[in-house]
Amino acid sequence: MTDPQRTYELDRKHVFHSWSAQAEITPMVVTKADGSWLWDGDGNRYLDFTSQLVFTNLGHQHPRVVKAIQEQAATLCTIAPVAANDARSEAARLIASHTPEGLDKVFFTNGGADANEHAIRMARLHTGRHKVLSRYRSYHGGTQLAINLTGDPRRWPNDHASDGVVHFFGPFLYRSAFHATTEAEECERALAHLEQVIALEGPGTIAAILLESIPGTAGIMVPPPGYLTGVRELCDRHGIVLIADEVMAGFGRAGRWFAVEHDAVVPDLLTFAKGVNSGYVPLGGVAINEAIAATFDHRPYPGGLTYSGHPLACAAAVATITTMEEDRVVEHAAALGEEVFGPGLTELAGRHDWIGEVRGTGVFWALDLVADRTTREPLAPYGGSSPAMGAVIAACKAEGLLPFANFNRIHVVPPLTISAEDARAGIAMLDRALAKAADSLVE
Amino acid sequence: MTDPQRTYELDRKHVFHSWSAQAEITPMVVTKADGSWLWDGDGNRYLDFTSQLVFTNLGHQHPRVVKAIQEQAATLCTIAPVAANDARSEAARLIASHTPEGLDKVFFTNGGADANEHAIRMARLHTGRHKVLSRYRSYHGGTQLAINLTGDPRRWPNDHASDGVVHFFGPFLYRSAFHATTEAEECERALAHLEQVIALEGPGTIAAILLESIPGTAGIMVPPPGYLTGVRELCDRHGIVLIADEVMAGFGRAGRWFAVEHDAVVPDLLTFAKGVNSGYVPLGGVAINEAIAATFDHRPYPGGLTYSGHPLACAAAVATITTMEEDRVVEHAAALGEEVFGPGLTELAGRHDWIGEVRGTGVFWALDLVADRTTREPLAPYGGSSPAMGAVIAACKAEGLLPFANFNRIHVVPPLTISAEDARAGIAMLDRALAKAADSLVE
Ligand SMILES: Cc1ncc(COP(=O)(O)O)c(C=O)c1O
Ligand SMILES: Cc1ncc(COP(=O)(O)O)c(C=O)c1O
Repeated sequence: MTDPQRTYELDRKHVFHSWSAQAEITPMVVTKADGSWLWDGDGNRYLDFTSQLVFTNLGHQHPRVVKAIQEQAATLCTIAPVAANDARSEAARLIASHTPEGLDKVFFTNGGADANEHAIRMARLHTGRHKVLSRYRSYHGGTQLAINLTGDPRRWPNDHASDGVVHFFGPFLYRSAFHATTEAEECERALAHLEQVIALEGPGTIAAILLESIPGTAGIMVPPPGYLTGVRELCDRHGIVLIADEVMAGFGRAGRWFAVEHDAVVPDLLTFAKGVNSGYVPLGGVAINEAIAATFDHRPYPGGLTYSGHPLACAAAVATITTMEEDRVVEHAAALGEEVFGPGLTELAGRHDWIGEVRGTGVFWALDLVADRTTREPLAPYGGSSPAMGAVIAACKAEGLLPFANFNRIHVVPPLTISAEDARAGIAMLDRALAKAADSLVE
Repeated sequence: MTDPQRTYELDRKHVFHSWSAQAEITPMVVTKADGSWLWDGDGNRYLDFTSQLVFTNLGHQHPRVVKAIQEQAATLCTIAPVAANDARSEAARLIASHTPEGLDKVFFTNGGADANEHAIRMARLHTGRHKVLSRYRSYHGGTQLAINLTGDPRRWPNDHASDGVVHFFGPFLYRSAFHATTEAEECERALAHLEQVIALEGPGTIAAILLESIPGTAGIMVPPPGYLTGVRELCDRHGIVLIADEVMAGFGRAGRWFAVEHDAVVPDLLTFAKGVNSGYVPLGGVAINEAIAATFDHRPYPGGLTYSGHPLACAAAVATITTMEEDRVVEHAAALGEEVFGPGLTELAGRHDWIGEVRGTGVFWALDLVADRTTREPLAPYGGSSPAMGAVIAACKAEGLLPFANFNRIHVVPPLTISAEDARAGIAMLDRALAKAADSLVE
């Protein structure tokens, strides 16, 4: 381990950070991490309520995954995509055993953005159509097509050559675009809206609808029951490929192996990354149904990448999935949602006026913070920050809690393996932090 | 190690392979690899003249890199991009110590495609311009923007939303687009052509010129001396960002740390992947000059990815670069080019009529195979294959040589660490394979 001070200085000198104004950040030096906890360069310990970028689903340094990486490294670190390799075969088998019925082939990528890029390509070539519909309030990745498809402010500076990308509104009752007052009404109106967009764009021009099964970074907006089923029906009616982006929501995060299971919907393509191997080695991919896979049986699929099916990444996936199965991690995540996070965060909302809404499932929760409960005015503007949000974040850190913040929201997204005790401790830290932040702003 | 037969069956059932018609491939099961050699499921040994996809620059299973991965795995597999981390800092420092003068900041990605995507984004935001010029006969990656920029047939099925991408002709004397007869003439005419394209597209509309310093997969066409200098001058004259794609040519492949050094050119942005850590863990990135980095000092860079600066990948880069320094791997690569590959392959050309041209440098060589030396008719059509090329590939494998083939070319691109003895043995195998293939076609 090098000196944290030197790590910091070299970082400032040589590392260009994502999504940041380089001169305005002071990265925390992380020197150690274990399970749901990590340590900074000054020896302070933090409870990780972020799973980093919502990917260390098994927590930090899970011994089985570490061991699998070490063993695969000793055996065969890497081999080209053209070869067959045991780690790659086994990872694909295990993934296919958990994806919805019929999604039996896996194309491996390095992460979520390229998974979505390749899914779009497959859909376009399968349908012979060009347009892709995606939601406002969504995130699909940082490469050009993926950011074009993204429905959050990170797209704005990147609107180049986005021809063929069309955004629509998804269901989000708390900030309804449809003037709805109940979940059922929101669902119905959101589907009617999508139906109109399809009709007006021209059904025969639309290759795919790309949807986060539960939009993550954009606000963990669990769709009303029936919404995904309705989208599936619209896709079927018009020969449109349904792509479920499960990069964040998948692999147990939402208390199911995949979030589409909440609505029992089977997409045509399903993209994943993050939780597939807890992010221990970069890995993403597309699970493909039979019809789309068959399109490329005798016609080459015109896409690829050097590290498709990287053995080290695949070995980490095998260990992660096996651990999830044997330790019943998905069931644990579902139970935590029902028994700890749901009740615990709802109780918090009873004590803090800033909490406008608590929503989520499994280990996937958002607090929608508002300056005013009646107007629902967000505590920070869309795409921005505010002194109040800054105070909440600072107070969390002072409490020893690493928070996931986005605009006016705090997401509660620790590892799926967090103990009920640590989960409750984290909620208590959040409680104190919210009180402290509110107090500090009153003065 | 699982049973190779099972690996194969699971692969066929669950793995979707890049760039392939899925029903028409029979992937070789690779069970073991060491240095420049690998073994298939039947125990056959092959000399790896491909470095897989030209990325295992230190060969397979280099003990120092394996050890570094194992140690980093035991310490800290992963951490979000927002943190500072010792492996990430040290990798950035080492990379910046070898990139051309002034390219001192590193943005890490997962591979080459996203490195290019982000480089384009930086150039567009830095200049406020939209268009990007790139070469015909080039490869820049498989994501949508990267494949739009690519100048090979893999782009054709992917020409969606490619607004802003313009292709020009680069220097390639053997198949000159400029009716040139000498290297100097080719250079001068290629620069005049580029100057015209810039003038006719509108200099003020062009954000960047993206160029492989030495185009790799497209044919290892070492540019004539002065070409890159000329491109640099055109960029300077018009405020265009010069992006050198060194994903394949960089990190020693061309007998220099970076191939731009052959012309002593300093690009504004330099993209890398592959050789940076021999592909042991997915990693790529962009080295950024001061002016472009400064653009994002107080204005957020609107791009990122979950695994930017992945510690495991960075630890592998640290071990790879340190090994390259201490073992003088780049010098070895240069010497192999001058003493073994240059003379050895030229001698081969003297014995096989199919070899139209031998070109390359370092451990980066192409045999341009032709049906007729006078007309230079390629042994397989552009974008396709042929019975003759099929015979060459099959004969190489029968000799125990894994060949890198693209259309009418065989590339000679083994690990940089290959011994002179193995290099000569491989050339001898190629010799016998070419003879056998030619014989088989005469009958
Ligand atoms: C839903 C979703 N899709 C795609 C991505 C992009 O994944 P990556 O950052 O690995 O490219 C993310 C990343 O946060 C995501 O949350
Ligand atoms: C010159 C060049 N650029 C970019 C790429 C794309 O890299 P990746 O496959 O890691 O996305 C490659 C891959 O072969 C390449 O050779």
